[in-house]
Amino acid sequence: MKKIEFFKKKSFLIKNLFPKLKFKNNFKVNGIRSLEKSKKNDLTFFDSIKYKHLALNTKASLCITTEKLAKFLPQNVEKIVVKNVMSELTKILKAIYPEADIDYPDLTLKSPIKNKFKSVKFSNNVLIGNNVKIGKNSIIGANTIIEHDVVIGNNCTIGSQVVIKNSVLGNNVVIQDGCKIGLKGFGFIPLKDNNLKIPHIGNVIIEDNVEIASNCTIDRGSIDDTTIGKNSYLDNQVHIAHNVKIGSNCMIAGQVGFAGSAAIGNNVSIGGQAGISGHLKIGNSVKIGGGSGVIKDVKDNQVIMGYPAVQLKEFIKNSKK
Amino acid sequence: MKKIEFFKKKSFLIKNLFPKLKFKNNFKVNGIRSLEKSKKNDLTFFDSIKYKHLALNTKASLCITTEKLAKFLPQNVEKIVVKNVMSELTKILKAIYPEADIDYPDLTLKSPIKNKFKSVKFSNNVLIGNNVKIGKNSIIGANTIIEHDVVIGNNCTIGSQVVIKNSVLGNNVVIQDGCKIGLKGFGFIPLKDNNLKIPHIGNVIIEDNVEIASNCTIDRGSIDDTTIGKNSYLDNQVHIAHNVKIGSNCMIAGQVGFAGSAAIGNNVSIGGQAGISGHLKIGNSVKIGGGSGVIKDVKDNQVIMGYPAVQLKEFIKNSKK
Amino acid sequence: MKKIEFFKKKSFLIKNLFPKLKFKNNFKVNGIRSLEKSKKNDLTFFDSIKYKHLALNTKASLCITTEKLAKFLPQNVEKIVVKNVMSELTKILKAIYPEADIDYPDLTLKSPIKNKFKSVKFSNNVLIGNNVKIGKNSIIGANTIIEHDVVIGNNCTIGSQVVIKNSVLGNNVVIQDGCKIGLKGFGFIPLKDNNLKIPHIGNVIIEDNVEIASNCTIDRGSIDDTTIGKNSYLDNQVHIAHNVKIGSNCMIAGQVGFAGSAAIGNNVSIGGQAGISGHLKIGNSVKIGGGSGVIKDVKDNQVIMGYPAVQLKEFIKNSKK
Repeated sequence: MKKIEFFKKKSFLIKNLFPKLKFKNNFKVNGIRSLEKSKKNDLTFFDSIKYKHLALNTKASLCITTEKLAKFLPQNVEKIVVKNVMSELTKILKAIYPEADIDYPDLTLKSPIKNKFKSVKFSNNVLIGNNVKIGKNSIIGANTIIEHDVVIGNNCTIGSQVVIKNSVLGNNVVIQDGCKIGLKGFGFIPLKDNNLKIPHIGNVIIEDNVEIASNCTIDRGSIDDTTIGKNSYLDNQVHIAHNVKIGSNCMIAGQVGFAGSAAIGNNVSIGGQAGISGHLKIGNSVKIGGGSGVIKDVKDNQVIMGYPAVQLKEFIKNSKK
Repeated sequence: MKKIEFFKKKSFLIKNLFPKLKFKNNFKVNGIRSLEKSKKNDLTFFDSIKYKHLALNTKASLCITTEKLAKFLPQNVEKIVVKNVMSELTKILKAIYPEADIDYPDLTLKSPIKNKFKSVKFSNNVLIGNNVKIGKNSIIGANTIIEHDVVIGNNCTIGSQVVIKNSVLGNNVVIQDGCKIGLKGFGFIPLKDNNLKIPHIGNVIIEDNVEIASNCTIDRGSIDDTTIGKNSYLDNQVHIAHNVKIGSNCMIAGQVGFAGSAAIGNNVSIGGQAGISGHLKIGNSVKIGGGSGVIKDVKDNQVIMGYPAVQLKEFIKNSKK
Repeated sequence: MKKIEFFKKKSFLIKNLFPKLKFKNNFKVNGIRSLEKSKKNDLTFFDSIKYKHLALNTKASLCITTEKLAKFLPQNVEKIVVKNVMSELTKILKAIYPEADIDYPDLTLKSPIKNKFKSVKFSNNVLIGNNVKIGKNSIIGANTIIEHDVVIGNNCTIGSQVVIKNSVLGNNVVIQDGCKIGLKGFGFIPLKDNNLKIPHIGNVIIEDNVEIASNCTIDRGSIDDTTIGKNSYLDNQVHIAHNVKIGSNCMIAGQVGFAGSAAIGNNVSIGGQAGISGHLKIGNSVKIGGGSGVIKDVKDNQVIMGYPAVQLKEFIKNSKK
């Protein structure tokens, strides 16, 4: 699905953005993207040896990184060498996207104009921001808020008292009452008495046929996106942090929580109240028992349970001790 | 409390519903109910030997079942013998109740007509569906949505930003802000790229004097009902899946989750964040410690804790190892 | 921050409140407060030897207590000696504050009057109760409800579909969509078939620079207040029960739950889905791993994890067994 730019962007020449540094070239920063997704004139960041393989091939023109890591970047990439990558990145994000660090309520909301959404059904008191797109035969529940620039596909059913912002939804998506989708994630640089909030410029991408039950919260990505793959179903009160990737055909039971940047494969089933730690990679066709706390990567086809989660057989054996 | 039929029902002769089968009789299907609650001309289903005792005495006229189980049904019951009972049942449910597989927002909502609810107090922007009944001296908070045919008793206090659908509430019920009650449960037949959603035609039944704190989610039953017994109290963010039965005088602390069809006795207390697996039977006067994961039936008067939950003494002993 | 009295108070002479008892003096009860916060003419309660040090120095004029504990109170305090302190206190609370035992929806809500909130930005359909104060440059999201007498500081950003009642917020506070703040906590005297609800007359106090993510629930205090200290950040779906104190500069990840009266120090970080039992004291600079169940007090600077939570080293060792 097409990524949308939801946030106002200020235009900077790199020499103005980093006045104390010298660059071989000068150009306008196009946007801030991950090592993998950056293109020419994009600024990216590289803060862990874990991403060396992506750094080696980045197409970015400018990269915030450390002295140790700089050597892995292609020669033509302009390097901003700093001690604390996230802190520097946060400052630059705030300069370029000044309105992405807090979820400022959308002041463009209005009642939907019927001519614009001819085949969409709206229940009462729906509020729609500027430039929202909603596909054919979709239906939107009462008191629901769809903020500016959101894209909703065909045949979607959005419940009541939902908020959707910074998100792109495919076709046949069902979102039940009370969900909050596309909000800023839990990201900040801790500073005594006044943390520095990390602007979140990513999207939430929800693919076709996804169903999301009531009162779930799905945060948008920070730089990259949060994605829910085709035909995955989420039960009530699931919490999905920023940058999480969920594959297709997954079943996520009630009150499951995913910490930031967890990547879940396809055909994964997760029992109620399980928690997945941040930055983990869960393979395809994994089954995770209810209440589990997953704190390590999991290979394809594993069946795990426990806190910390282990092979199901081991969990059963331990429980009998 | 009286069960209400919330969903539009299509009328079918059984010969039209199953054109390839032969039946001794032909009749209009009255409704779809459990083995236990079915009456004459009802269709039911029997998919596990666990329910043999109910099958032996069902009053249903028609039953979807397997070859192995069919023999336990009374002779006069017309049998639909299939390999996958839930899959066949889902198709029939969708044919008879075409609007119960997705929570289509109620398009009959309006501001409450004061003449109709003379002794009810409404805060601002309340929305009420067709044929809603609200008892004397009840009060409904701002932005709350009560969908068509819901019944609310006397002296109830419903908070703000609540949604109630497919539900019947007794007297003196308190529901705090943000609760979502009566939504479709997490039920579907997994199919690659496009799951088959199971229509949910059950109710949520909330008995007298129940208190439900903020942002709870209580799903309606699939065929049978979800019920909360008299004087039971639920704290914030509790998740109750479809078909759960909670007895009377229970205390359920914050963020507890119940998986589908769990049956909880009377006078049960459950500590915060505990989880109860699906289809379990928890006896009367059971105490379950906070954070427990209950994965087995529990007899009356037990005190349990842990993940998996064991006798409290054993939990304490294990913790000291 | 200044404590506000949100509830209507009935005026009683102590001789009318306790007609069967004899007192040295007669006076109007000014309010009901904790041992520590009571002043002259206040009524307090003392129900556990744990609070002996506070009882010895209370400034209250009247105290509900037991026969065993009465001797620790200063001589000039009038004593109400009972068997069940909480039960007696509940009756007196209900007499003095008749509207604090249920969250009766605010019937004074109106659209904000622009003259009154000159530098505040409101999105659509905001509802404001009587006597609400909102500081400069704050912004309030759509469909949000701010009930009577609430105080919000400067530069606050309140999201959409939020409810705030019985609360005082400092400056630069961010509250994301769907939060429910200041509701009655989970407190009652269990009585067969009809529990006695404990009136909650406390506030929620949220200090400067706090950020609270979506769909969190923060209950107000019963007698004392619930407080979130300066610059503490809460992720999505956190549940904070009545009387909880959270220090400053804390980081609370998604779906964490705090039971009633837990007291958390400064600079504490808590991983996702952890649970903190009631009445615990967690020191400063403590780190609690995700999924932990904390059931004992924790001293400063500890790093703990597990269920029940133990030193991190021990948790890792146990996990390897």
